[in-house]
Amino acid sequence: MLKCLRCGASCGDDEPIWRCPDCGGHLDHITEKLLSISPEEIKRGPLSMWRYSKTMPVRSPEKAVTMGEGLTPLIPVELDGVKPLVKMDFLCPTGSYKDRGISVLVSRLRELGITSLIEDSSGNAGAAMAAYCTAGGLNCSVYVPDYTSAGKCVQIEAYGAELIRVPGTREDTTDAAMAAARETYYGSHNWSPWFVEGVKTFAYEIWEQLGWTAPDHLVLPLGQGSLVLGAYRALSELRDMGLIDHIPKIHGVQSANCAPLARAYESGLDVPENITKAETVAEGISSATPLRGAEVLEAVKRSRGSIVAVDEKPIVEGIFALASRGIYVEPTSAVVVPGISKLMESGAISKGETTVVFLSGSGLKATDKILELRRKIK
Amino acid sequence: MLKCLRCGASCGDDEPIWRCPDCGGHLDHITEKLLSISPEEIKRGPLSMWRYSKTMPVRSPEKAVTMGEGLTPLIPVELDGVKPLVKMDFLCPTGSYKDRGISVLVSRLRELGITSLIEDSSGNAGAAMAAYCTAGGLNCSVYVPDYTSAGKCVQIEAYGAELIRVPGTREDTTDAAMAAARETYYGSHNWSPWFVEGVKTFAYEIWEQLGWTAPDHLVLPLGQGSLVLGAYRALSELRDMGLIDHIPKIHGVQSANCAPLARAYESGLDVPENITKAETVAEGISSATPLRGAEVLEAVKRSRGSIVAVDEKPIVEGIFALASRGIYVEPTSAVVVPGISKLMESGAISKGETTVVFLSGSGLKATDKILELRRKIK
Repeated sequence: MLKCLRCGASCGDDEPIWRCPDCGGHLDHITEKLLSISPEEIKRGPLSMWRYSKTMPVRSPEKAVTMGEGLTPLIPVELDGVKPLVKMDFLCPTGSYKDRGISVLVSRLRELGITSLIEDSSGNAGAAMAAYCTAGGLNCSVYVPDYTSAGKCVQIEAYGAELIRVPGTREDTTDAAMAAARETYYGSHNWSPWFVEGVKTFAYEIWEQLGWTAPDHLVLPLGQGSLVLGAYRALSELRDMGLIDHIPKIHGVQSANCAPLARAYESGLDVPENITKAETVAEGISSATPLRGAEVLEAVKRSRGSIVAVDEKPIVEGIFALASRGIYVEPTSAVVVPGISKLMESGAISKGETTVVFLSGSGLKATDKILELRRKIK
Repeated sequence: MLKCLRCGASCGDDEPIWRCPDCGGHLDHITEKLLSISPEEIKRGPLSMWRYSKTMPVRSPEKAVTMGEGLTPLIPVELDGVKPLVKMDFLCPTGSYKDRGISVLVSRLRELGITSLIEDSSGNAGAAMAAYCTAGGLNCSVYVPDYTSAGKCVQIEAYGAELIRVPGTREDTTDAAMAAARETYYGSHNWSPWFVEGVKTFAYEIWEQLGWTAPDHLVLPLGQGSLVLGAYRALSELRDMGLIDHIPKIHGVQSANCAPLARAYESGLDVPENITKAETVAEGISSATPLRGAEVLEAVKRSRGSIVAVDEKPIVEGIFALASRGIYVEPTSAVVVPGISKLMESGAISKGETTVVFLSGSGLKATDKILELRRKIK
């Protein structure tokens, strides 16, 4: 079932719609019956996130558009005396975690008969959409802000998608895509009710990788909030199935230059306010008006987590702190380095607690920017 | 035990040597006792290539320098009517399969007390060496040809390694590194007896992913030949343990512009002759004088496989053929596309046989080159 987050209307999930037919609000996918999975069954499944297909709203998982995404490494790393586990999700097929959500989204849209769509993205979701659409036989146009890195643009075009660069902000890109989508299907991962159903699998995997237990904390880059929503969804499902006894605290990390959710969290608001954003190296989470802001704030609150904002300089230092441990990520992912430091300082996370930080995108996508930042920092 | 491939001398494997102390020849690692593994045991292991640690010459696998490399997806893809499975090994932590070998090499060198080393590489092994050295606390200098892509160079420097660009050919780079290594340890992956012991794990994984059976054919990019040697080693071990009943045919694919092994194979020679090479987009396999050429030829022959050479244009087309299936690899990997076509045409591979092609490096490492090639092809 799909349910509108604005007006509460509900409708079946077999129509190729992307927003509420009544009020234009955001649609959420609701799993009506209690899910059922077991470690034994999961271990017999494929070596990809599709071992969790019983938790996904895809009718025929055996026909899914998949490239083996997921089941990324979870490894211990020492960062400034803190010893988190890092979820290496930049090792998904197109170089970012978006593959998880896009694999489910494209599989479901193909089941619904969609053959052509428009996406807008800061780059990673666009690359994922271009890859999975071509793999699944769908046509795809991707709108990106014109500041998107060469690495991502060349990749999107190599997959054969149409690439449209839009001057201005990330929000201007969305406006241009939505205008164009009047003629075709708007496949936006941010609007889609299916995307988060794929993203959530990372939290299932962490549970598996920790020997079928939940960590104490998750520390996630936060822009639109699909990681927070995905984590909260998976962990709630695990709790409802009786497979974990507590939901970890979910912490979101924003760039201080674009932190509507961190501000709302600090002020105790239920809905983010409009903000004026500044440029940030964490381009992947530069979302001034997160579509599901209220939901994200509620998920964080329910998990007893928090949202912090971090400055540009420590984000840049974070890139090279991770690289000096052999882990090469794009600037956006590096927000978790100052993020975890802040959370330790404030006492939100204590030494000895099991903490997982999430790395969302590959450094190989950001060669030009990393070169430039390295020259500046020297 | 280490054994010299040139003079046959043998020595213990607890000395930090990289070539035969008697004659300067190439050392091979020999596993003296019969290995023993079982599917049940493997499935209980970590979700990385280290689930095969019982087959590796690392004394303390629990202290290995690892970032969760391996266990990469194996997925079916349709290419010109052929339906091979592709091993997505460009999804290793630094973006190439070299991580497998370097993880074992660095783990073993650390056990032997090495703290500083020199490597030379066309880029991918250098990036892997830089990453695993910094992760394991070793100092590292990487020599690369000055034509190495920006993506790889920026990555190597981000890890904190010293990068030295050498004008001229790949062979000039090796000469420069060997000269410099007189003062320190020469950690070269091509010389190391440990590298292939990590690389081989990809073939174990294919066996696992095919339900503990061997495919009919492996199609591998071929330069120095570590993939061929690794595959043959793993498959021989599996056969000796009674876990497979046949060794798949191993086919190597070279660029026609640098094909000493394909030429030797065609001429029935046991050792490759000197060749004059031309430039190729497949820079990762541009090895005019493969160190272990005789061994590679023998492994291919024993497996009843073959070696083919492919031209530049179909390699470039291969990049975009894979991308149009959602798979984005660097030019070197794309040799397998014309490679499999040639093998089908010649009857070496028949329709219906289980064929695995190997994809070695990420397209995200070659942004500039892929952009340039795309412009040319249009």
